Amino acid sequence: MLTLYYAPHTCALATHIALEEAGAAYQSVRIDFSAEGQRAPDYLAINPKGRVPALATPRGILTETPALLLFVAQTYPGARLAPLDDAYALARVQAFNAYICATLHVAHAHRMRGRRWADDPAAIAEMTRKAPDAVGACYDLIEREMFTGPWVAGADYTICDPYLFTLAQWLEDDGVDPARFPKVAAHRARMAERPAVARAITAETQ
Amino acid sequence: MLTLYYAPHTCALATHIALEEAGAAYQSVRIDFSAEGQRAPDYLAINPKGRVPALATPRGILTETPALLLFVAQTYPGARLAPLDDAYALARVQAFNAYICATLHVAHAHRMRGRRWADDPAAIAEMTRKAPDAVGACYDLIEREMFTGPWVAGADYTICDPYLFTLAQWLEDDGVDPARFPKVAAHRARMAERPAVARAITAETQ
Repeated sequence: MLTLYYAPHTCALATHIALEEAGAAYQSVRIDFSAEGQRAPDYLAINPKGRVPALATPRGILTETPALLLFVAQTYPGARLAPLDDAYALARVQAFNAYICATLHVAHAHRMRGRRWADDPAAIAEMTRKAPDAVGACYDLIEREMFTGPWVAGADYTICDPYLFTLAQWLEDDGVDPARFPKVAAHRARMAERPAVARAITAETQ
Repeated sequence: MLTLYYAPHTCALATHIALEEAGAAYQSVRIDFSAEGQRAPDYLAINPKGRVPALATPRGILTETPALLLFVAQTYPGARLAPLDDAYALARVQAFNAYICATLHVAHAHRMRGRRWADDPAAIAEMTRKAPDAVGACYDLIEREMFTGPWVAGADYTICDPYLFTLAQWLEDDGVDPARFPKVAAHRARMAERPAVARAITAETQ
């Protein structure tokens, strides 16, 4: 049995969707960010980073969304969530997810988490101000260069799709108009129709 | 034949080392950052992100260090650079590399690349000021929670090792004293003794 530690409106949704797509046997545990639950001692014992997601497995704890997504794909190969037998195609998938993790998510984080990289309130406010530009530039690149279609990596649904969908949930709050990115917007709508996506969202927000 | 696009003193060194460790047949092409070569049209045609590394393969271009490292490990399985047949162990490796990519490298980038996330010079200066704290906090976590030893992932050398080593090259410039992190410092010294590491560094800096 796997246990997913998550909070609503975080990138944990990507792994949540992947577990649903895979038909995995898992339970989920909500961490209450409003009570700083991610920094409570019992959660830090699970994930010393004080972040979500974390995935408890029979062998230990795993963290970091790109790693969790590939783990789900490898653990449930019948779900065909990644091109596991093709190193080049898998590297394309991995590169997309690394970009989401280290560039797009980081750009987004400057809207509300600027204190990670500055103490001065004016500097933190300046990061918040620029976040729509930085996030928008990421989606420009995704739309123009990285999105193959109809799914992120082409004909086959992969672990890129729940990750892009999860970040794209935040477009409006990031001050970025989804209409600028027709492929991303259409992908978001198509993803929302998948039963696994609906189940994960319902579980997180009910 | 593979072609690695790199610049000295960048994270491209990690992939360079991995290619050397694997005994790969490859050539390397230096991008001149001092002349903004990473933003020249001919390089943007290779990597629209305007960053290094990029790896040209017979099937196309790959980017993002975590993806390149796993690609090298999978393409040269005889080099045993990753636990390819163990999804859990591989996810631990992937999680470490995702942390280097999306948290440690990002903390480092605030020292000199603050313009990615702010326009105001005072805010950019504030990010530079705080970078040693942010980078140091990452190494605290690595030293305390993530480094197994003698190699990052334990008994076996993996694709985590060149990646940590590459970032650890920047400790002093980041204003962080390596003596605070005995395991990381010892790892850096041990890595520097490997012939593959010496070859990659020599190729990049000669």
